[in-house]
Amino acid sequence: MIGERVPMVDAYERITGTIDYAQNLTLPGMLYARILRSAHAHARVIRVDASKALAAPGVVAVLTGADLAADPGLKPWFGPFIKDRAPLAIDKARYVGDPVAIVAAETDDQACDAVELIEVEYEVLPAVFDIEGALAPGAPLLHPGKRHLESFRPDIVARQPGLEDTNVIHVYKLRRGDIEAGFAEAEVVVERTYTTPGVAHVPFETHNAVADYKGGKMTIWSSIQAPSSCGAYVAGILRMNISDVRVIVSTLGGGYGGKIDPMCEPLAAILARRTRRPVRVSLTRAEEFVTAGKHPSRIRIRSGVMRDGTLVAHEADVYYDGGSYSLNTPEKIYRGYASTGPYRVPNIHVDSYGVYTNTLPASAFRGYGIPQVAWAHEQQMDAIAEALGMDPLALRLKNVLQPGDQFSTGETIAENLHYSELLRDAAEHIGWAWPPAPRGPGAGTVTGTAAGASAGAGARVRGKGLAAIIKGTASYGANAVVKLNADGSLNVLTSTVEMGQGALTVLAQIAAHEATLPLSGVRVSTPDTANTPFDQMTAASRSTNFMGRAIRRAVKSVKQQLIDLAASQLEAAAGDLEIQDGAVVVKGSPGRRLTFAQIVTTSKVGSLVGSGHEPVKVKLDVETGQGVASPQWHPAICGAEVEVDQETGKVTVLQLHMGLYPGRMINPIHCELQVLGASLFGVGQTLFEELVWDEQGVLTNPNLSDYMIPSFLDVPRAFGQTMIEIPDSIDVHGLGETPLPAVAPAIANAVAQALGVRVVDLPLTPERVLRLIHERDRGAPGGGRGAGAGGASTSGKEASA
Amino acid sequence: MIGERVPMVDAYERITGTIDYAQNLTLPGMLYARILRSAHAHARVIRVDASKALAAPGVVAVLTGADLAADPGLKPWFGPFIKDRAPLAIDKARYVGDPVAIVAAETDDQACDAVELIEVEYEVLPAVFDIEGALAPGAPLLHPGKRHLESFRPDIVARQPGLEDTNVIHVYKLRRGDIEAGFAEAEVVVERTYTTPGVAHVPFETHNAVADYKGGKMTIWSSIQAPSSCGAYVAGILRMNISDVRVIVSTLGGGYGGKIDPMCEPLAAILARRTRRPVRVSLTRAEEFVTAGKHPSRIRIRSGVMRDGTLVAHEADVYYDGGSYSLNTPEKIYRGYASTGPYRVPNIHVDSYGVYTNTLPASAFRGYGIPQVAWAHEQQMDAIAEALGMDPLALRLKNVLQPGDQFSTGETIAENLHYSELLRDAAEHIGWAWPPAPRGPGAGTVTGTAAGASAGAGARVRGKGLAAIIKGTASYGANAVVKLNADGSLNVLTSTVEMGQGALTVLAQIAAHEATLPLSGVRVSTPDTANTPFDQMTAASRSTNFMGRAIRRAVKSVKQQLIDLAASQLEAAAGDLEIQDGAVVVKGSPGRRLTFAQIVTTSKVGSLVGSGHEPVKVKLDVETGQGVASPQWHPAICGAEVEVDQETGKVTVLQLHMGLYPGRMINPIHCELQVLGASLFGVGQTLFEELVWDEQGVLTNPNLSDYMIPSFLDVPRAFGQTMIEIPDSIDVHGLGETPLPAVAPAIANAVAQALGVRVVDLPLTPERVLRLIHERDRGAPGGGRGAGAGGASTSGKEASA
Repeated sequence: MIGERVPMVDAYERITGTIDYAQNLTLPGMLYARILRSAHAHARVIRVDASKALAAPGVVAVLTGADLAADPGLKPWFGPFIKDRAPLAIDKARYVGDPVAIVAAETDDQACDAVELIEVEYEVLPAVFDIEGALAPGAPLLHPGKRHLESFRPDIVARQPGLEDTNVIHVYKLRRGDIEAGFAEAEVVVERTYTTPGVAHVPFETHNAVADYKGGKMTIWSSIQAPSSCGAYVAGILRMNISDVRVIVSTLGGGYGGKIDPMCEPLAAILARRTRRPVRVSLTRAEEFVTAGKHPSRIRIRSGVMRDGTLVAHEADVYYDGGSYSLNTPEKIYRGYASTGPYRVPNIHVDSYGVYTNTLPASAFRGYGIPQVAWAHEQQMDAIAEALGMDPLALRLKNVLQPGDQFSTGETIAENLHYSELLRDAAEHIGWAWPPAPRGPGAGTVTGTAAGASAGAGARVRGKGLAAIIKGTASYGANAVVKLNADGSLNVLTSTVEMGQGALTVLAQIAAHEATLPLSGVRVSTPDTANTPFDQMTAASRSTNFMGRAIRRAVKSVKQQLIDLAASQLEAAAGDLEIQDGAVVVKGSPGRRLTFAQIVTTSKVGSLVGSGHEPVKVKLDVETGQGVASPQWHPAICGAEVEVDQETGKVTVLQLHMGLYPGRMINPIHCELQVLGASLFGVGQTLFEELVWDEQGVLTNPNLSDYMIPSFLDVPRAFGQTMIEIPDSIDVHGLGETPLPAVAPAIANAVAQALGVRVVDLPLTPERVLRLIHERDRGAPGGGRGAGAGGASTSGKEASA
Repeated sequence: MIGERVPMVDAYERITGTIDYAQNLTLPGMLYARILRSAHAHARVIRVDASKALAAPGVVAVLTGADLAADPGLKPWFGPFIKDRAPLAIDKARYVGDPVAIVAAETDDQACDAVELIEVEYEVLPAVFDIEGALAPGAPLLHPGKRHLESFRPDIVARQPGLEDTNVIHVYKLRRGDIEAGFAEAEVVVERTYTTPGVAHVPFETHNAVADYKGGKMTIWSSIQAPSSCGAYVAGILRMNISDVRVIVSTLGGGYGGKIDPMCEPLAAILARRTRRPVRVSLTRAEEFVTAGKHPSRIRIRSGVMRDGTLVAHEADVYYDGGSYSLNTPEKIYRGYASTGPYRVPNIHVDSYGVYTNTLPASAFRGYGIPQVAWAHEQQMDAIAEALGMDPLALRLKNVLQPGDQFSTGETIAENLHYSELLRDAAEHIGWAWPPAPRGPGAGTVTGTAAGASAGAGARVRGKGLAAIIKGTASYGANAVVKLNADGSLNVLTSTVEMGQGALTVLAQIAAHEATLPLSGVRVSTPDTANTPFDQMTAASRSTNFMGRAIRRAVKSVKQQLIDLAASQLEAAAGDLEIQDGAVVVKGSPGRRLTFAQIVTTSKVGSLVGSGHEPVKVKLDVETGQGVASPQWHPAICGAEVEVDQETGKVTVLQLHMGLYPGRMINPIHCELQVLGASLFGVGQTLFEELVWDEQGVLTNPNLSDYMIPSFLDVPRAFGQTMIEIPDSIDVHGLGETPLPAVAPAIANAVAQALGVRVVDLPLTPERVLRLIHERDRGAPGGGRGAGAGGASTSGKEASA
């Protein structure tokens, strides 16, 4: 089963449109709820008058933040790390789109109409919309005195004195070696600042949930990536036990990290308990755009290197803009540890900040903080190479992590992550040469190799770029239960969410392999948190690996039970038995065997149950950021070739070649599609995806006309991938996110090679590229020729070296 | 938690009518199916023409037995012990009401209309409607050559040569001691024959199921008492894996044994897979009456006794009328072992037969074969007492099983079942006296003690009677899984069905007790066979005991995991730790403790899972019927006082006093209501419940006007119960069925005492009683004065003794 290219188990339903998305669920007597959202970026909610709405046809209930605060049955503040959010704004609205009130009515139209009748009196407050504004002295505070807010995960969110009355959510500090000595030793110093914007997840299915409250039990059907955690949040908010909150997830129409945090579930649950009716909360596409996004970032890196290219010092200030509520920001900022990239650096000093601004809450987003630092560190590597006059490939090969090297966190990367192989392979695939052969205008053919160097405005020029990234993952709370039935078939119970990635298929392959059963003999359940064991979330490219391991442990437990039962049934010693093809066999006597079905039936047990857990292995020191940051590391390489039209500024990606180390591919189809999908996500974010707010904090492009995602026309003209596998193993490295972070810097490095100017702010829109070309051609500062000379401020240290 | 009178966890939903019965489920796109049933008791199906039905408005599919037989994707013959039934009659219809075809249509009305359009050509065959007819030489055979039918449970249904071409389904033989020697030794021999009729279960909610087929997975929402077994049947019929068939059961509106066998589920599933639409199959009340019933019985007992009352020989022929399909008859006939009653008998010879007749299939029914034998053996005891001139109470006390005695099956009843105490107690409660004081006509007051002996016709006379019964139970496949959540709350996963008996509440109490948690900290799931482990069925008064034990084992496993985790967290040896009130505590250092929530959270495991199984302990020898018939024995005593109106024949139950040994009552409210409910079931079956067929095999009373169940007016004027508990234990004896079998013989014994004639055929309708009174008063045979002289043939052996 391992390595088989089997189709998805739900392929027929996907094709015929008959999957039971939560979005399609209706229950008898169900109410429809619609949300009133703040029109102000920062405003005290003085009074909400819902009387007209309550009198409107079909309206059953209206709920405001004041109602939440006044209800002793609720504990409305919640959050995965810091409890700074409520289902409805209680004291203040903190961004344009912040939920202020909700109406439940007999029909959706009635709910929509009634929302318009709610009158809110606000006291408008000054607001901040970006990192700089949030950190400026005297900036308006989103959560003044926020350190009084309860921390849900004190292991992550340690108290940090002095930050109470700032907009800083939390700081992660990494201290390694002697940073002063490192820079003193360095012969060249390069310092630059890179930024990334807010981006939307754009799942096909918007956030939605239906809640029903009966018999003291809350049942929630939801489109959520973290059903177990969602159940715990809802239980906390409604002062219920986790055992009484059941979250059922069928299949998601996309998630990408944006569906980890409960957005509709608490509201649906509170309304369901109040009205004793099932309640649906479902977001419009416009609401989806103001519900969760990717963290904008600003990252300053100062690198100290020797003339031979050896990295000796890395200093970085990493700022993640968490928006109005902290969500996972307190933990995401730990990704500052990867601002070094996948390189050996002996002396490191990183401060990584999460910051509140009056924008939509930033959540997890495919890549979880790594795309931001990768955008910085991989352009920084090219900038260093430029400063040294060195081949960027050679610079990377010189410094990239080898087995046994220590990562920035001090942990030894024992495993061969194959960086050197994959870098050389990607370089070869894109026809990398150093120095780049002079290249002329190209006609967009992919097969052409070295063409010409950058030419004057109006001509199309080409360039090539490389990037290497490192990404960790999360193992918290991966549990599985398996049930072997009387016919020898196996049910697998997990809270892993199928969201298009093929989890139901791949986990079944792993279970079938471990159980020595055909794939048809295994069925993986979808999450139902009353019945399926805890799993933190389906995210972090973790499920195939960690849930797969938990499943294998659970199956091993059942195999041991089978052997113990068969030992008495076969009158043999357990040690003389082994498992083969769904049967227990006496070693060396293939005729003496009992099938699983025979063993279960004979024992009259009915079914055999086993459970498995994959333990957490992560621990970082609060003071130094040193320790173990991830149970496993995922490498990715991207080689890119681009063509830039210097007349329009349009960047065309001619070729992408991805290099990955999936360990073993359980299902190569899924792996290849994950790599392609994540790479296209990367192309969109590189070239055009960006949430744009006006001066009032109003999102100007909350729709799919003004906010573009990649279409078939944006697929690179050539796309390749190299996968290095561990043969004959089932050691899995997650792939769902890994390709993404490498794409943008590789393309930017290629653009820099083509144009001789560097874009340090994403995305590479034609306007931005054209402006740089104009600056370059005017000889403006930072507009000089040669990769590494464009963009943000840079300081050489040649003089002092 | 143990012994607490907590209300049912779903009390609010019961009162407000908001429980999610399967009957109320509708799914988008759902089809409605209706069944065409045979109008003939026995007929070969020559041809079914469904063309007009298929052309009717809204009809999506019509299915016939021929379709089932022709479909290579199906294996239509199924059954719990012998596979002699198909979802639709394939070769022959075997009773009036046998499903012949089914229509699925867009609306229920369309399905009902289309059923009328199906044309069936039958070859009508001779039929048999009772045990005598079925066993008569040359009787028409329902399943000729039936021994070729596959046996699903060869451990139960051993081959019995010579029965292939008879209507005998199966025979259970019990041989103990030396029956010849026993009768040779006996000083008195009493022989009588007793009969019971067919009876309906009459659940408020009729049988129904909705099936949906998606992604190779069948989901069935059903009102069934045995979801795990149902899943296995459906998997077998549709040639699917058990892992791919999910049976979901919310709450049943009553079951009483009639919902153990799948009646709607296979049809719904086959139609759902054919149409790729959800399909509902739901029975009308009239259909419910022809779907499953209680086994009619005829039981001849010949007892050999010494003049001092010592029982020395017991010979019985026990016939259970299984109707047209065997269902659980092959195993139910084993209850012939209880035809001795709860008495020591050294020499036993029992042949217990299951017989096919052209009537509705007889299924499990509250008491599972014991009410039939109890009706016989407890009247037989009074007949013996009469023959000996002995106090029936004294006769029972002399022979009743004491701890250490051997039961008919040879197994030692080690446990004190408290028969003597309970018999004396019931006798005292009803004012038992021997010889009975002369009693005159009563006015229906309950408090009156000894009144008068039987008087002439036209007067109301009173009598008192006693009965003692013994009932076994079943332990097959009781499994539980528990999940401890991060807040210390506990989910309990079982396939036990809530059907009004309070399983969700009582199992939660047991789990809470074992886990040292408050009841509010425990939630028991309803069955979902993809996720909940196998359980044979919710029946046989087994769930509180055996599922309770499985749950306790599962909780113990989690407790051990908690101790192991806490040992490292508290830096203590596991042996020094104990569990108290939801925490792990260092023995002797109450301050050193961690709550379950702290342990789960600190360990980052997310949830802890444990599983538990209660093993099967039953095994009977095929030749002798000796061995262990039940993992546990349940006693019941009934004391009854009746008044009989000799003018109308009407019997009024003045008083019932039940004596039971529940072990420990987990929830006394539930126990008391179970005893009351089962006793009222007994009153109905004693006085008026009876399925009546005409000569063509047509049921004449398939409705609640002509088939009466007890109303409030039938509740005894006084009702009491004595429960002997084991203090400070959690040893449970099931109660759901136990009281029922004792009621009818106690009332009949009281009627015999009042009238001086004995009714040996149930029910005691006024017509039947009046006829006996008339016979008595005419001095007809068997109509003489004195209990034990009336009814069936009786032979004394005084002469030969």
